[in-house]
Amino acid sequence: MSTPPVIIERLAIIGTGLIGGSLARALRAAGGVTTIVGCDRDAHNLLQALELGVVDEIAADVAAAVRGAQAVFISVPVCAIPGVVREMVPFLAPGCVVSDGGSVKAAIVAECEGLMPPGCCFIGGHPIAGTEHSGPAAAFATLYQGKRCILTPTVNTDAGAYDTVSRLWQAAGAQVCCMEPGHHDRIFAEISHLPHVVAYALVHAVGTADVEGENVLSYTAGGFRDFTRIASSDPAMWRDISLMNREALLGSIDGFSRSLAELRCRIESRDPQGLAEFFTIAKQFRDGIV
Amino acid sequence: MSTPPVIIERLAIIGTGLIGGSLARALRAAGGVTTIVGCDRDAHNLLQALELGVVDEIAADVAAAVRGAQAVFISVPVCAIPGVVREMVPFLAPGCVVSDGGSVKAAIVAECEGLMPPGCCFIGGHPIAGTEHSGPAAAFATLYQGKRCILTPTVNTDAGAYDTVSRLWQAAGAQVCCMEPGHHDRIFAEISHLPHVVAYALVHAVGTADVEGENVLSYTAGGFRDFTRIASSDPAMWRDISLMNREALLGSIDGFSRSLAELRCRIESRDPQGLAEFFTIAKQFRDGIV
Repeated sequence: MSTPPVIIERLAIIGTGLIGGSLARALRAAGGVTTIVGCDRDAHNLLQALELGVVDEIAADVAAAVRGAQAVFISVPVCAIPGVVREMVPFLAPGCVVSDGGSVKAAIVAECEGLMPPGCCFIGGHPIAGTEHSGPAAAFATLYQGKRCILTPTVNTDAGAYDTVSRLWQAAGAQVCCMEPGHHDRIFAEISHLPHVVAYALVHAVGTADVEGENVLSYTAGGFRDFTRIASSDPAMWRDISLMNREALLGSIDGFSRSLAELRCRIESRDPQGLAEFFTIAKQFRDGIV
Repeated sequence: MSTPPVIIERLAIIGTGLIGGSLARALRAAGGVTTIVGCDRDAHNLLQALELGVVDEIAADVAAAVRGAQAVFISVPVCAIPGVVREMVPFLAPGCVVSDGGSVKAAIVAECEGLMPPGCCFIGGHPIAGTEHSGPAAAFATLYQGKRCILTPTVNTDAGAYDTVSRLWQAAGAQVCCMEPGHHDRIFAEISHLPHVVAYALVHAVGTADVEGENVLSYTAGGFRDFTRIASSDPAMWRDISLMNREALLGSIDGFSRSLAELRCRIESRDPQGLAEFFTIAKQFRDGIV
């Protein structure tokens, strides 16, 4: 077997948690990068990333982290990404490619592309992988193995820069696919952002329901807990995602409300055939994805 | 240790699947019943229940099963319960108590109470336990251990009959609690029937969403699968539950729709503070039940 080619010499990772740390570990295991420098607002995370060997070097701020890097990967909460890009812009090396791992793309890509100095390129990315854990200690080299990573280039994207980011993700084990940022956001509004919003609304409704003054949540069993697990996610993260993907999410909520209204109508009109059809269609969709 | 008292000599179980079969196994293990006779419309299930020792005897029909029994437990789909009661009425022994395990109570209790001959008593029941498996082979003696079983007596309920059903469930390991049938239905509309309806509507909406003609379900990951698992439940069962608990369920759907509309309003009006509050309240409800 031949030694895999080094894709770039120096990669900066801003945000050394599960997502950034796992990319670092995967690229080290694959030999795709010579040196990885980490930066994190949280000093404990940053020192731990160095101690655990997730990164080779650490930097005190974004400016120092990106100096001399051929590529930068940003894995911080979605609403913080444009601010991080703003900080790094004056210090980017010529030809540097900047990418991110945020789960919303159109707003981020539009803003960050506009911030790039001539010769540098921003490419939106979204690896479809994760665990319920966080922080550098949770990072592992095979997180992205066989998982999809969506890249969202635009008409402004440099082909060489796209190739670099794509090869980095492939070296990390991911299957790279490519789509328009708005298309990404409409898909994830449906399959991720809508389910979270629905789960939060459901728990809110059940928690505030007044059934003769009784706390109905005390009767919940395993099924309810499983169904509502995603309503335990970080409220600040979902506040940001809801606002950053506002338009697509509103459309998805409206589509869901139409489906629910249709189902409600079949219950109200006592339509056994219509109910069986509705539930069967939904079950077929659900069983088709397993 | 003293031998536990036999509660009744002869118990008939109509429907020898997971729920009925596990009650049989639990009562045998506890020594609460001398003889258990099983009856099931599905001949394979019935013979298997006998072969596996879930029941002592089997009967070809409901009439034969209930003859000489002091208690009858009905564990068949909710919409089939009144029909089973109708079949058994002419053959019930004097003083027999009939109970069920259906997840809807008001409609069943009203109908089945009215069918009882003088001296016999129907008491609605709902054990809060289950697994994803079904059939007599899935039954096990500890299914109800430490779980709640809700009984829904009415003003017509005979105290001795209630005591018999209550002692049977306690012998099976369950914690018996007691509530009015309509109260039960309003609670379970919130914590069980509403989540199922919402999950079906969500999968229906996402499955029929048109995002530039693409099958968005192909992008779903583990989170979506977990969240929508209950939309894989039996459509016929949920058709029946939706219709039998129609009124309470419509109220729960409307309460949920109000919560969702409130959340949608905070997204549309770009209200970060309001969104953080809503998500935090929901997360607190959710984390409180674990």
